[in-house]
Amino acid sequence: MRRILMIALIALFMTACAEAEDVGPVGIAIHGGAGTMDPEDMDEEREAEYHAALEEALEAGHEVLADGGESLDAVQAAIRVLEDEPLFNAGRGSVFTSDGENELDAALMDGRDLNAGAVAGVRKIRNPIDLTRLIMDESPHVLFSGAGAERFAENFEDELEFVDPEFFHTDHRWEQLQEAQREEAEQGGEFRSERNPGSEHALGTVGAVALDAEGNLAAGTSTGGMTNKRFGRIGDVPILGSGTYANNETAALSATGHGEYIMRAVTLHDISSVMMYGEKSLEEAADYVVNEKLVDMGGNAGVIAIDGEGNITMPFNTSGMYRGSIDVDGNVKTAIFAE
Amino acid sequence: MRRILMIALIALFMTACAEAEDVGPVGIAIHGGAGTMDPEDMDEEREAEYHAALEEALEAGHEVLADGGESLDAVQAAIRVLEDEPLFNAGRGSVFTSDGENELDAALMDGRDLNAGAVAGVRKIRNPIDLTRLIMDESPHVLFSGAGAERFAENFEDELEFVDPEFFHTDHRWEQLQEAQREEAEQGGEFRSERNPGSEHALGTVGAVALDAEGNLAAGTSTGGMTNKRFGRIGDVPILGSGTYANNETAALSATGHGEYIMRAVTLHDISSVMMYGEKSLEEAADYVVNEKLVDMGGNAGVIAIDGEGNITMPFNTSGMYRGSIDVDGNVKTAIFAE
Repeated sequence: MRRILMIALIALFMTACAEAEDVGPVGIAIHGGAGTMDPEDMDEEREAEYHAALEEALEAGHEVLADGGESLDAVQAAIRVLEDEPLFNAGRGSVFTSDGENELDAALMDGRDLNAGAVAGVRKIRNPIDLTRLIMDESPHVLFSGAGAERFAENFEDELEFVDPEFFHTDHRWEQLQEAQREEAEQGGEFRSERNPGSEHALGTVGAVALDAEGNLAAGTSTGGMTNKRFGRIGDVPILGSGTYANNETAALSATGHGEYIMRAVTLHDISSVMMYGEKSLEEAADYVVNEKLVDMGGNAGVIAIDGEGNITMPFNTSGMYRGSIDVDGNVKTAIFAE
Repeated sequence: MRRILMIALIALFMTACAEAEDVGPVGIAIHGGAGTMDPEDMDEEREAEYHAALEEALEAGHEVLADGGESLDAVQAAIRVLEDEPLFNAGRGSVFTSDGENELDAALMDGRDLNAGAVAGVRKIRNPIDLTRLIMDESPHVLFSGAGAERFAENFEDELEFVDPEFFHTDHRWEQLQEAQREEAEQGGEFRSERNPGSEHALGTVGAVALDAEGNLAAGTSTGGMTNKRFGRIGDVPILGSGTYANNETAALSATGHGEYIMRAVTLHDISSVMMYGEKSLEEAADYVVNEKLVDMGGNAGVIAIDGEGNITMPFNTSGMYRGSIDVDGNVKTAIFAE
C-alpha cells in the first residue's frame, strides 16, 4: 500500500516536472511613445502618473501570460489600458487632425503565422486594437481604412464598444492643435511648416509585445497620429514591418517616433532581417537599426522588442521613451528618460 | 599648328572617354499583373495586344533613360502608359469596388535616399503615379488616403489631370464585378466567400523598376485593387517594402499578386534583406522569397526587380505574369506565361 502511494506520488511529481518543462518563459514590454522629453519639464507628480499608467498596462498584459494565455491576448489587454489612458496619444487622449477630429490607427500581428489586422483613420471605436483583432480573425484582409473600417466594425457590435467621436476629445490635445496651427501660420502655411517631428507634442504612439508560455510572439501598436495631420495621412503604425511586426523566428516589435522615416526604413522588418539573415542577437539588431541606420537617415524613433527566449530590448534615439517591461523572471521595470 | 590641333583632338577624345565612363548601364522592367492565366483562354489577337501594350510602356520608360534621364522619371513614364491602357487593372481599366466605384492605389520610391510617395483609394486622378511623385517631392509625408489625398492633389492642378470618376469605367471590369457579386451571394455572403485570390479576374497591378545612367534605382506600382473590394481595404501596392521598394544598395522592386500575403511577408524588403544581410544575388534572393517563402505561406505573387548593375529578374509563382524588360544591352523582351 505504501509502495503504491509512493509510485503514485513519483508519477505525480514527474507529470508536474514534464508540464513545467512545456511551459516556457513569458515576458512583456510596452511603450507609450518616444520623443523630445526634458526631465525639467515634468514634475514628480506627472512622472508618477506615467509610471503608474505603464505599470497598470504591464500588469494587465502579464496577467494573461501568467494564466497561460496567448501573447495576442496579452498584447490586446495591455494596449486597451494604454488606449483608455488620456496620458498617451492613442484611443482616449489622441491628438487632433487639422480638421479638429480624432482619427485612430492600430495594428496587431501574430508571430506564429504572420497573420495580422490593421486599421487607419477610425473615429468611433473606443479600442481600435480590438478592431484589429477582428480584422485578423474574421476577414481575409489585413488593412482597412476610414469609414470602410467602421462599416466592417458594425458587423461586430457585441465585441466592440462604439463611442461618440466626442469621447476622444481631451482639452490638453485640443490646446496642442491650436498651438500647432498658430505655429504653422507663422511659418507660412501647410507646405512650409517645419514642426519638430520628434517633439512629444507632435507625435506619440502606444505599443506592446509579448512572449507566451507556448513560445509564441505577438506585437501591437495604436495611435492617434500626428497633431494637425491632414490629407488622410497614414503613418507607420498600421504598416506591417514598419510600425508593427511579429515573427516567431525572430522577434515581436513595436515602433514609435517619426512615422515617415520608420516607413521608408521598413524599420521593424529590418531589425528582424538583421537577426534572420545577419545572424545577430535581438539587442544587436535593434541597436544597429535604431541607433545607427535611423540616426544616419535623421529619423527619430524608439522600438520595444522581445524574442523567443524572452530577451527584451527597448532602444530609442530620442531623449526619452515612455516604456516598461516584465521580464521572464518577473522583474517589473518602467522608465521615461535615458538611463 | 598641326600639333595644337592634335592636342585639342586628344583632349576632346579624353573628355569623351571620361564622360562615357560616367555613364553607366541603364535598364527597365515592367509588369501588368500576375495570376492564374491559361494560354487556352487567350486568342492570338488578345495576346498580341498585351505584348504591344507592354512594349509601348517599356519604350516610354527606356527613352527617358537613354536620354540620360532619372530612373524615377522613367518609372513614371512607363507606369503612365500602363495606367492609361484599359487592358491592365490600374488607372483606366481598374476593377470596381463592391460599391461600384474605382479606388486607385499607387506608390513610387527613390533608391537614392529611400524617399517615397504613396496613395490609397483615389478616385479622380487620371494617373495616380503622378500624384505619388508630388507627395514625394512636395510633402513631408509618405502615404495619403482617400478624399484627403485628393485634397492634397487640388494644390497641383497644373501638374495633374483630374477626371470624372466615370473615366475609369470599362464594361469589361463592370461585368467582372457582377460576376464576383453573383459568386459571393451563392457562397453565403461577404465573410464566407472564397474567391480565388490569385485569379486574374480578382487582382492585377502594374509596376516598373529602372536603373539610370547615374546608377540610381527607382520603383513604382499602381493598381485598381481587388474586384468587389470593400471596407476601404488597402492592399500591398502603397506599402513600402511590401508592394513597392527601391534601395540603391540592393535593388528596385515591384510586386503583384495576393496583396495580403505580400504585406504579411513584407515581400520586397525581404528580398532586399536577403541580398543585404544574406549576401545573395538579386536573382537568388528574389527566387528564394517568391518561389520558396511565399509558396510555403500560400501566397500567389510575382516580382520584377533590377539591381545596380542592371541585372533583371522577374520570378512569379503563378501560371503567368504580364511582364517585359529592356536590359543593359538594349534587348527588348515581353512575355505572359512561364517559359
